[in-house]
Amino acid sequence: MATDFRRKEQLPDLTDALVATYTDLNRINHLGHCPLPSTEAVIEIAQDLKEVIYPGYRRRQNLHIGNITYHVGDLIDGLHDKLTLQIARALRHDFQLTHAVGCQEELQQDFEGLGQKKALAFLECLPGIRRLLDCDAQAAYDGDPAAKSIDEIIFCYPGLEAITIHRIAHELYKLDVPLIPRVLAEWSHANTGIDIHPGADIGPYFFIDHGTGVVIGETCEIASYVKIYQGVTLGALSFAHDDEGRLVRDQKRHPTIEEHVVLYANATVLGGDTVVGAHSVIGASVSLTKSVPAHTQVTIEKPQLRFREAPQSA
Amino acid sequence: MATDFRRKEQLPDLTDALVATYTDLNRINHLGHCPLPSTEAVIEIAQDLKEVIYPGYRRRQNLHIGNITYHVGDLIDGLHDKLTLQIARALRHDFQLTHAVGCQEELQQDFEGLGQKKALAFLECLPGIRRLLDCDAQAAYDGDPAAKSIDEIIFCYPGLEAITIHRIAHELYKLDVPLIPRVLAEWSHANTGIDIHPGADIGPYFFIDHGTGVVIGETCEIASYVKIYQGVTLGALSFAHDDEGRLVRDQKRHPTIEEHVVLYANATVLGGDTVVGAHSVIGASVSLTKSVPAHTQVTIEKPQLRFREAPQSA
Amino acid sequence: MATDFRRKEQLPDLTDALVATYTDLNRINHLGHCPLPSTEAVIEIAQDLKEVIYPGYRRRQNLHIGNITYHVGDLIDGLHDKLTLQIARALRHDFQLTHAVGCQEELQQDFEGLGQKKALAFLECLPGIRRLLDCDAQAAYDGDPAAKSIDEIIFCYPGLEAITIHRIAHELYKLDVPLIPRVLAEWSHANTGIDIHPGADIGPYFFIDHGTGVVIGETCEIASYVKIYQGVTLGALSFAHDDEGRLVRDQKRHPTIEEHVVLYANATVLGGDTVVGAHSVIGASVSLTKSVPAHTQVTIEKPQLRFREAPQSA
Amino acid sequence: MATDFRRKEQLPDLTDALVATYTDLNRINHLGHCPLPSTEAVIEIAQDLKEVIYPGYRRRQNLHIGNITYHVGDLIDGLHDKLTLQIARALRHDFQLTHAVGCQEELQQDFEGLGQKKALAFLECLPGIRRLLDCDAQAAYDGDPAAKSIDEIIFCYPGLEAITIHRIAHELYKLDVPLIPRVLAEWSHANTGIDIHPGADIGPYFFIDHGTGVVIGETCEIASYVKIYQGVTLGALSFAHDDEGRLVRDQKRHPTIEEHVVLYANATVLGGDTVVGAHSVIGASVSLTKSVPAHTQVTIEKPQLRFREAPQSA
Amino acid sequence: MATDFRRKEQLPDLTDALVATYTDLNRINHLGHCPLPSTEAVIEIAQDLKEVIYPGYRRRQNLHIGNITYHVGDLIDGLHDKLTLQIARALRHDFQLTHAVGCQEELQQDFEGLGQKKALAFLECLPGIRRLLDCDAQAAYDGDPAAKSIDEIIFCYPGLEAITIHRIAHELYKLDVPLIPRVLAEWSHANTGIDIHPGADIGPYFFIDHGTGVVIGETCEIASYVKIYQGVTLGALSFAHDDEGRLVRDQKRHPTIEEHVVLYANATVLGGDTVVGAHSVIGASVSLTKSVPAHTQVTIEKPQLRFREAPQSA
Amino acid sequence: MATDFRRKEQLPDLTDALVATYTDLNRINHLGHCPLPSTEAVIEIAQDLKEVIYPGYRRRQNLHIGNITYHVGDLIDGLHDKLTLQIARALRHDFQLTHAVGCQEELQQDFEGLGQKKALAFLECLPGIRRLLDCDAQAAYDGDPAAKSIDEIIFCYPGLEAITIHRIAHELYKLDVPLIPRVLAEWSHANTGIDIHPGADIGPYFFIDHGTGVVIGETCEIASYVKIYQGVTLGALSFAHDDEGRLVRDQKRHPTIEEHVVLYANATVLGGDTVVGAHSVIGASVSLTKSVPAHTQVTIEKPQLRFREAPQSA
Repeated sequence: MATDFRRKEQLPDLTDALVATYTDLNRINHLGHCPLPSTEAVIEIAQDLKEVIYPGYRRRQNLHIGNITYHVGDLIDGLHDKLTLQIARALRHDFQLTHAVGCQEELQQDFEGLGQKKALAFLECLPGIRRLLDCDAQAAYDGDPAAKSIDEIIFCYPGLEAITIHRIAHELYKLDVPLIPRVLAEWSHANTGIDIHPGADIGPYFFIDHGTGVVIGETCEIASYVKIYQGVTLGALSFAHDDEGRLVRDQKRHPTIEEHVVLYANATVLGGDTVVGAHSVIGASVSLTKSVPAHTQVTIEKPQLRFREAPQSA
Repeated sequence: MATDFRRKEQLPDLTDALVATYTDLNRINHLGHCPLPSTEAVIEIAQDLKEVIYPGYRRRQNLHIGNITYHVGDLIDGLHDKLTLQIARALRHDFQLTHAVGCQEELQQDFEGLGQKKALAFLECLPGIRRLLDCDAQAAYDGDPAAKSIDEIIFCYPGLEAITIHRIAHELYKLDVPLIPRVLAEWSHANTGIDIHPGADIGPYFFIDHGTGVVIGETCEIASYVKIYQGVTLGALSFAHDDEGRLVRDQKRHPTIEEHVVLYANATVLGGDTVVGAHSVIGASVSLTKSVPAHTQVTIEKPQLRFREAPQSA
Repeated sequence: MATDFRRKEQLPDLTDALVATYTDLNRINHLGHCPLPSTEAVIEIAQDLKEVIYPGYRRRQNLHIGNITYHVGDLIDGLHDKLTLQIARALRHDFQLTHAVGCQEELQQDFEGLGQKKALAFLECLPGIRRLLDCDAQAAYDGDPAAKSIDEIIFCYPGLEAITIHRIAHELYKLDVPLIPRVLAEWSHANTGIDIHPGADIGPYFFIDHGTGVVIGETCEIASYVKIYQGVTLGALSFAHDDEGRLVRDQKRHPTIEEHVVLYANATVLGGDTVVGAHSVIGASVSLTKSVPAHTQVTIEKPQLRFREAPQSA
Repeated sequence: MATDFRRKEQLPDLTDALVATYTDLNRINHLGHCPLPSTEAVIEIAQDLKEVIYPGYRRRQNLHIGNITYHVGDLIDGLHDKLTLQIARALRHDFQLTHAVGCQEELQQDFEGLGQKKALAFLECLPGIRRLLDCDAQAAYDGDPAAKSIDEIIFCYPGLEAITIHRIAHELYKLDVPLIPRVLAEWSHANTGIDIHPGADIGPYFFIDHGTGVVIGETCEIASYVKIYQGVTLGALSFAHDDEGRLVRDQKRHPTIEEHVVLYANATVLGGDTVVGAHSVIGASVSLTKSVPAHTQVTIEKPQLRFREAPQSA
Repeated sequence: MATDFRRKEQLPDLTDALVATYTDLNRINHLGHCPLPSTEAVIEIAQDLKEVIYPGYRRRQNLHIGNITYHVGDLIDGLHDKLTLQIARALRHDFQLTHAVGCQEELQQDFEGLGQKKALAFLECLPGIRRLLDCDAQAAYDGDPAAKSIDEIIFCYPGLEAITIHRIAHELYKLDVPLIPRVLAEWSHANTGIDIHPGADIGPYFFIDHGTGVVIGETCEIASYVKIYQGVTLGALSFAHDDEGRLVRDQKRHPTIEEHVVLYANATVLGGDTVVGAHSVIGASVSLTKSVPAHTQVTIEKPQLRFREAPQSA
Repeated sequence: MATDFRRKEQLPDLTDALVATYTDLNRINHLGHCPLPSTEAVIEIAQDLKEVIYPGYRRRQNLHIGNITYHVGDLIDGLHDKLTLQIARALRHDFQLTHAVGCQEELQQDFEGLGQKKALAFLECLPGIRRLLDCDAQAAYDGDPAAKSIDEIIFCYPGLEAITIHRIAHELYKLDVPLIPRVLAEWSHANTGIDIHPGADIGPYFFIDHGTGVVIGETCEIASYVKIYQGVTLGALSFAHDDEGRLVRDQKRHPTIEEHVVLYANATVLGGDTVVGAHSVIGASVSLTKSVPAHTQVTIEKPQLRFREAPQSA
């Protein structure tokens, strides 16, 4: 009856069998004395950044003109240290992917020094990021009749949350920081249902409404005043392979959206050469794989609907 | 090598540049001595409410008829205080949006007293909310052959989670509580992928299956025994603008769904005048922008499929 | 002004009214001395399992060949105890659903002993689960040109997260563990937007890209090397009812996907008899309700698009 | 330079050497499947008890006549469960000290049932404990001119803290609960510097001022209105040994103090037969080893002091 | 066997009996809507103060001249708010002790405004407190040959810990803040075994070695360069009573110690009129109840020791 | 009324005044980029060590022969890393006390490598430490008639707690680890009221009963089977000064206690040349400053007591 402690005697064998797979299948475990970036630390960085970007909404209250510099200066100092450490780890990891671990070259790399430079370069972008997000918040207010105030948008709109994290991740991506931008993007994806690759280049006054299911690919270019609804995909048409059948990475595979374009729910635009011209309106569920000129309204020829009397016991 | 501490000397300049944007771009920071509602506190309220609505499933175990009153009474008392505080903050914030901050009129408002009244009025709705949710749980059990028991539905169905938070948020919405209903709705959206505006008016026996990507707009009216699948949108057709080109807010923009209607995956119904008559069945991916009478079955005229032999190296 | 404490005197009445509903509507509260499985404990188990499956990525750093056995052995021992407890609770709960609570038969059941057996049987599956996930990680790398390394995939791909939790939940499902597999699946659904029923039978080298909105039903069978994009549904066509109008549960209701099939975004395959033959490619937004032979490429006859000049003030 | 990871290879040997001592020196490790009471849980019980004994001072604020029953009832219910579990563990442990582990007799014991009975018997004592502590608080107020209010005494007097935990521990001691009373007493000793054995029998209106270094032995009897200063010892004179040279345990070894006695700082009273008669005053540093009649004032014949001029460089 | 749930039915009666004592014995519970200061909050304030007084030792590392202002400014701002709140609560509570609760006079008091004034006045003392503590740290280094560095003293000397908290508590005491100074003092007493009443007036270069059991009374005056060992008591000789037999509070009851005095272990000096003249040395265990002039060395006429052969079986 | 926010404008000035003292009084702040050991981390190390020394009593339950190696091995691995880091920090700090910060010599020091060596050397002592503590636990059981079992002693005797931490700190002291042994000793002092300097050399079977106020100096030597009661001081007689009037540090200043000695409460033995011979018994309150031969019983010639009738209103 109840737990039989003799049965626990098989646990060491079970453990050994599992540990054996760390040698056999060693691509999906990370042993060794070189720590990876920490997802937890990266998320903490993101939370700190949201606090300095939108002070007064979340963590610390009673901020005022007399104490805001202390609060923000303290956070920036901490961010410097945290970013330096995590970026250095990401750089070392990235280096090891293409070099022998512990090789002479690795020893000569100053990953932490480089990490610090990138951390500082990133922190310098914060005023610019705030400038863009101020535009995005305005675009959300102008684009959604249900919005009561800018504050409400900052408090709870997943679209603004997603573009906030994207603008952070994109600056790190431009600084060639490995891994971390993607960790940020997927954290945001999990929180909002909106999947924006950190590589996407997005202009000001960008608004995503509802957002669940939106996918924006790595090489997208999106100009200013673009508005997107839930389920929109800006994706790749097909993937190029090299002569040996391997995927060609780092190629423009995703579309270009010019300014003042609206993409309604579940619209799909695919392909690196596809350009949606300025002021165009792409209707719900439209699927585009080639360019349209400016000022085009594209709608789907609605599929015929069939109306019958519904069966009784629906 | 490694971190260069002299480089940190630029951090104060960096901080100043960022702090300067709190004056320039002051719509996206909240400085001043009037605290906003706290998202964290609102989520804690929601968790407490789930504990009194579904006692015995999550937080506290070993509840029984002899101690349940203590447990619930203690939570209700705490909810009174937490709700009063958060609602009062939301009311003050809302007042300030349309009045000069610190004006004579503001000083005369008794936000906390009003907050308490609304908190009490809300708490009185709890038995009614439980009554509706009991129906919703039954609808889920009747509607999903994979459901093994009502308990399983309460434990883990995102559809029930979403409608639970919605029924809470909707009561607060009806009590004219600003901001908080929306914070609740977006918290639920983040957890479930289901986006229901707190304004939507939804009858008993409502069931959403799978749910990811569902969008239900502010002015929807949904009668009893309605069933909805993932990706369904009940949205607005277009937004009215006033003479000065500004969005007209607070208008019926979203459809009406009568009782016993089923909406299959990715169906879309748009427009404030659109009514789906009782006992109708709207097929997957159907997009409706005008009303259908009761007992109508609407399916899409399936787009022709093209079948070819697949290329070798897919 | 401010809080009026006399108004709090109505809280006891409010509490009593709410507590009264625990008798009336007693299906949605769980009172009694038999604790249910704890969602929190189940999630902790899942986190421990991810740590032993992918050591070195998340929780504990500086793992190396000299200490990994200690770390994993310690976790396995704890997992044995946690799993035994939670499975025993789930078994007792399941038993009570079909028997009188406290009946003679219940007293004779050794739920904890049975829980331990199932816990041990599950832990024995871990090397096999790792073997499958190693394949899945490879499939993700091969299938996404944006992936820089296997490590990046383990760190942040929601598709791998979803299949990891699924492979855990599926083993528990096969061991007839009640409730817990579903709790795991819905936790993963909330985190990734990917909804895979624990019953689905999925082969190695499975890759879901982006993933939001994917739904995979209980009785799906998916062979090896299958690739799926966001919004794909593998669902039921309709539900059978028995003579008394009740849903027939436990029947093959969802499709079979053979090896090397690709399903593009928002493709839908429905029905328990539907088989997508090996090496087929199902295009975006295609909706299939009957089988296609191997090596078939199915695309939608694109709906006619209408291009007009967009109105001025879009 | 820095950490040499090869040196870590000796850690497994180090571990093995340490683990070997768990067999050799097995009195100071507790292996096996029978968990001991948890110090942490016992402290949590003590904190809960302080909350029901002195509601409104520490943990929960805004208690009022309308919610106090909920708050206390909820705590009492939890205390029942926690006490039952910890007492049952202590009883089983105590049983095993004198019996073969896993013996037939042990299997027949209903430790949890007995634990519950003792838990309930203890909870019934709470009103009486409060009655005594109300007297003790009064005695502290009457005895210390620095005390500003009863509230200050409850907030921060270590003497009241010590007697509070003692009165709890003493009731458990009288109920023959093993181990737990002593854990409570030593927790209080660590917090206050006051060491009262749970066996000591102490009447109402007891006041300890300052308290550091006070020691009160197991078999002390202290009547009402006794006042004690820091450093007072009520101890044993010498220990009896049996014929085999082992200590005789469970004998009156500590003194009796009658009502209205004052013991000034560092006074020492030793011996089980020593009685300090009512209304006596024992001066600072007095050391008594035999009885004094009622109404006696005992002071030390002050040792002669020598006064010299102090050396220059003190 | 095991827990008998029917026995739990007596818990409501138990609860009622306990709750009844909240009316009978209502001096030792605090019901009502006026929250007391929070011990937890006061301790948090103390921890924040230690961080600004000794930055770099405990909580935050990597402080440097470039970020210290941010860190400290942020803490000072938070301290202002926390102190204002807690002091206001203490003032209101103190007011209620001598007035009818809810009386007209109470409503007219601006406790929070007064609390803020006292909070600001206290914060202005911080540089002065640091100046004193710098002297105290030096005195410890000069007085203890075991001390390796000033840093070691700051890190772990209980004597410095005690005087640090005392200097904080004493400033609040001088500002007539009720209750909080005493809470601080007793927190320090619990941590260090050193009991200094917040009222004691202590000059710079004060050093307590070891410290356990030291007691320093409310009306002590201690000049500069005084050194004290464990167990020293600076106490009251006897308490004055007024005509009605009540203690006379607020009178000089404790001694005056002039500069450069050393008091060895367990020395006792009692009485408000007792003055130990400058540069005196009071030997271990000496008990003084009257004044000694400057430059006096007082030692105890050692009690005769008796040396015998120890019995065999010690 | 209430908080006046304009008054907060003086906070920046206040902050500046405080920050200015970090330059003036820079001995009691630690600015700079070289982090000190962390008290918190050192305490965590102590807790981990207690877990491997006394497994099964505190943190982890259900330890058994099958999992103990995993649990302990995991802790030892973590202890290696934590100790290496903290010792390296302590070494660097100690080096800087006597050298110019950032000097050439410092750059050439491998503090972390040296830290690791000391960490490993310490971990090798653990079996020996356990052997000593096993003796100490036995001595406590043999010496206290109130002790019911060895387990009770491990659970809650402050004397065993103090000697446990001392034996750890003493090994680190012998390895010339700076600062950390003292931090450990003072943490233990705070918890137990027993102040043992890490330098004291103490043999097996050591027992301290009650313990509050015990002081044992740096250069004490204590042989086996010594028993000590509360308030005992083994201290220095006076401090030697060098020609410039500075304290001479690192000299035998404290007594030697031979085996089988008992020191009763508040006994004091002072001086580096004082030796208490084996099997001696030193009575309560005896103060010794010179040696006594073996087998001596020393008691105080009791001061004459004066017995009078106590005054009425004591």
